Amino acid sequence: MIKRQNEFTSDLRESMRGGNGVVELKNFASTEDMNNKGRMFGTITLKPGCSIGWHVHEKDSELFYILKGTAKYSDNGNEATVNAGDVTYCPAGTGHSIENIGDDNVELVALIVYA
Amino acid sequence: MIKRQNEFTSDLRESMRGGNGVVELKNFASTEDMNNKGRMFGTITLKPGCSIGWHVHEKDSELFYILKGTAKYSDNGNEATVNAGDVTYCPAGTGHSIENIGDDNVELVALIVYA
Repeated sequence: MIKRQNEFTSDLRESMRGGNGVVELKNFASTEDMNNKGRMFGTITLKPGCSIGWHVHEKDSELFYILKGTAKYSDNGNEATVNAGDVTYCPAGTGHSIENIGDDNVELVALIVYA
Repeated sequence: MIKRQNEFTSDLRESMRGGNGVVELKNFASTEDMNNKGRMFGTITLKPGCSIGWHVHEKDSELFYILKGTAKYSDNGNEATVNAGDVTYCPAGTGHSIENIGDDNVELVALIVYA
């Protein structure tokens, strides 16, 4: 199956996890597509100043592959700057947050797999 | 955990699945990182003319998210052109192949989840 880029709907989340502004999500795969092994494989776009607030992944793990932009990432409480090409890994039982601290959009691929 | 882009090693595969030229893989996540739910979350780069030959996914499913370039994709035997932003889905028990038919590199994010 081929899904064309214009077939994906944007899911706009305001104050996602208590963060700032609006976050745009496009999920490419249903849980069924992922053989019930996960619930997200898609892109997340954060405009300058926008963020996903701190949250803990209780029953799944999340990876981000940064495609564009510059963000402040909290890696279970330890803050660091991430840029295009970097990968973040939030194992089940730990938390994270991400904020666009640059002048351009941050775009990343997110993957959530169940624990 | 944050993994920096320069920490990933390139896995160069010649004639991958019987395809043409050399294919570059960077895997961001071990099977353990994926909670034993999959075996690949990373990028694949194909230079012009290079390809991954036809193969069937027997025990897992694979999704491609095309980041750059133009490719000919065989979707279980049905050929189509895919471009940046398109997503291909190869469920377990079906096959696919991909060939760079453009003048620039094809880069994509690949995800393999177990069936």
